[in-house]
Amino acid sequence: MSSSGSAIQTLPGFRDFYPQECSTRNYLFCQWREGCRRYGFHEYEGPILEATDLYRKKSGDEVVDQLFAFTDKGERDVAMRPELTPTLARMVAARQRDFKKPMRWFSIGPFFRYERPMVKKGRMREFYQFNCDIIGEEAEGVDAELIALAIDLMLSLGLSEDDFVVRVSDRQAWVDFAKNEGVDEDGIDAFLQCVDKMEREKEEVTAERLQALGTSLEAVRTFMEGGAAQVERLQRLFEQLRAQEKDAYCKVDLGIVRGLAYYTGVVFEIFDKKHGLRAIAGGGRYDRLIHTLSDGKADMPAAGFAMGDTVMSLLIDKTPEAKRRLDVWSRRQEAIDVYAVIAAESQRHAALAGVQQLRDAGLRVQYPFGPMKVGKQFQTAESQGAPVAVVFGDEYPKIQVKDLEKRQESAVEGLEAMVGTVEMLLENPHPGGLIA
Amino acid sequence: MSSSGSAIQTLPGFRDFYPQECSTRNYLFCQWREGCRRYGFHEYEGPILEATDLYRKKSGDEVVDQLFAFTDKGERDVAMRPELTPTLARMVAARQRDFKKPMRWFSIGPFFRYERPMVKKGRMREFYQFNCDIIGEEAEGVDAELIALAIDLMLSLGLSEDDFVVRVSDRQAWVDFAKNEGVDEDGIDAFLQCVDKMEREKEEVTAERLQALGTSLEAVRTFMEGGAAQVERLQRLFEQLRAQEKDAYCKVDLGIVRGLAYYTGVVFEIFDKKHGLRAIAGGGRYDRLIHTLSDGKADMPAAGFAMGDTVMSLLIDKTPEAKRRLDVWSRRQEAIDVYAVIAAESQRHAALAGVQQLRDAGLRVQYPFGPMKVGKQFQTAESQGAPVAVVFGDEYPKIQVKDLEKRQESAVEGLEAMVGTVEMLLENPHPGGLIA
Repeated sequence: MSSSGSAIQTLPGFRDFYPQECSTRNYLFCQWREGCRRYGFHEYEGPILEATDLYRKKSGDEVVDQLFAFTDKGERDVAMRPELTPTLARMVAARQRDFKKPMRWFSIGPFFRYERPMVKKGRMREFYQFNCDIIGEEAEGVDAELIALAIDLMLSLGLSEDDFVVRVSDRQAWVDFAKNEGVDEDGIDAFLQCVDKMEREKEEVTAERLQALGTSLEAVRTFMEGGAAQVERLQRLFEQLRAQEKDAYCKVDLGIVRGLAYYTGVVFEIFDKKHGLRAIAGGGRYDRLIHTLSDGKADMPAAGFAMGDTVMSLLIDKTPEAKRRLDVWSRRQEAIDVYAVIAAESQRHAALAGVQQLRDAGLRVQYPFGPMKVGKQFQTAESQGAPVAVVFGDEYPKIQVKDLEKRQESAVEGLEAMVGTVEMLLENPHPGGLIA
Repeated sequence: MSSSGSAIQTLPGFRDFYPQECSTRNYLFCQWREGCRRYGFHEYEGPILEATDLYRKKSGDEVVDQLFAFTDKGERDVAMRPELTPTLARMVAARQRDFKKPMRWFSIGPFFRYERPMVKKGRMREFYQFNCDIIGEEAEGVDAELIALAIDLMLSLGLSEDDFVVRVSDRQAWVDFAKNEGVDEDGIDAFLQCVDKMEREKEEVTAERLQALGTSLEAVRTFMEGGAAQVERLQRLFEQLRAQEKDAYCKVDLGIVRGLAYYTGVVFEIFDKKHGLRAIAGGGRYDRLIHTLSDGKADMPAAGFAMGDTVMSLLIDKTPEAKRRLDVWSRRQEAIDVYAVIAAESQRHAALAGVQQLRDAGLRVQYPFGPMKVGKQFQTAESQGAPVAVVFGDEYPKIQVKDLEKRQESAVEGLEAMVGTVEMLLENPHPGGLIA
């Protein structure tokens, strides 16, 4: 946020992304995209503003309370999106016959929640979120695929088994448990919420609630400690994760229920192991949500997860290997390739023609827009990370080509020779392509 | 927009980006980014929501009337951004000492205006805009640099001299003209607005207004027809554009004044030549705006331009060569590399291990999440654009590798050999890197 005393400031909980911060953001976007592409996912995006009703339909009252909502000039109740799943359901329902199932879709964009900002904990009012979902596939294999993708995204950022853990649970297992214990159909949601809040609630309160619902704290605890052994689906999930070499990053934790009421099967959350940050990612199976959100127009099994930029950025910053990778990427992304030094103003037009040819060859080039001392031009070249400078002076068409890292130079004749020499010095300057 | 009969629809003027539309969007973003990088620009981004006062400060009343503005839960008057320049001025003023001048900055993001949507004309309530600015440099060279960049962006999209023209003018030349004619200091803004509206206004009205300001329609017309010959700055500009091989795309048109009151020098707009669309891009020099918007905290010369996604998408769609390039890019971007056919469910875990190794090698891979007929799996492979399939069946660790384009196949032994063979068949599948 702006630290200035200017009359108008950045709104609380919103961020200015100066080039350095923007580079970090783009790095995350890039890794998310690249990871998703490897898993054969296709990118989509929805509007940032939606009818408020779209969010009211989902059970999460908390989300509705946190909306940036208003009435537009056409008297519509609208809201800046706090999450993407309702938009996804709307889009899928509107054109469900146009796409082959299963759909593997992902999206990256800004979201908004009016919460108290907590910068150090990674809670902002405007944040970026990565969403990915597999729609129209009921096979269990989807759960492992999504968890494997989430883990590969973490690994691609330079985070390791020492840094994070995926806690896996099964909401359906708890529903089955509750039914076995004799909890009423109507009491199931309250039961799940009670389990979800157990860790934060006083023991007596939980015990009392569970008893009122027809079960007991003891029974719940016994089940929780039993873990995967009692849940066959989780056992099959872990076998698949083992085949994908991902089981070591995962742990069954039946305490994970996910606050949102719409999950119907395997659920998971990713946490850091060292810094006690908020959850890095979370998701699971939600087979009935598209039906609910589309007013019954569409009915498709689905599963997915989301990952935000704020906690992730904090974690990268606290993890040396992850930070190192980000820094390497940023330096490469932001550096220019060539600085064209104009040593004689009379050669400005010749320099411009040379700059154009270098750029046409795909290189990143800067030059001074007006007269500037040659020494200062070389300083600028260095500060912009240019490994090469070309010097246009009175001796043109002779051009000096300087390797600024090796401190070597040579003279070439004419623009074509100059471009060739520069290309040779640089050799494949952007191996990963220009990604953001 | 959604064409469904669902209860909740996309808001009017807002768009759903299904994978195909999202690919078009990403293609534009990619070309904008790549072009800017070649010019040595750095990306930044601001918040999507700002204090409404930030927009009130600028003279453009029209923009304020079109705001998606509201009062947030903290009683702040806020607005969804209709443009980026005020944010840029705020950011620059807040940290003006932290960056070397000139700053070459660009940004790509969503913007919002409550106007009547006109889809066929490319006017939407939510649109993406590319902005780039050079800040802290008063040298005239900046004007040519920005125009050259704008032209290179058009060329990179496959648009040519036949498709577009850059109309260049100089607002300062009009100010000088008005002063020479004896127009009062207070009348200058009204005079510029009058010239701006000439084309759309009745001749008598314009003549009357000009007379009231102390000049005449005849004098204005004579000046306009005189063109660059009377404006030395434009002559110097064109010499520089010639050095950058860009003059053929440009035309002096003193009728261009730009509605926004804050421009102070060279201004330009880009128009298509064949379809009569709205302006594709526009910008110019605005040396006093940062001072105004920052309450005098910062004072820096600046120039820049913006380009929207909506008119550009229409133009690409209407221009065969541009459309062809987009389609090639999209196909390459969306296609997977390998489909892993699971011919025997008993080999699912082996297949998953193989999929993981292919992905670790950077390849884009899909496989069926549950049991599926082999024929249907090959159909899926084709529909996803996979040039290669690998088949895991009862004969594992023998794996079939199929070149789906050449209709050739070979059998290999074990996962490592499989990955090697697939890599050989694909040879550098993503030469441009994964860009979006």
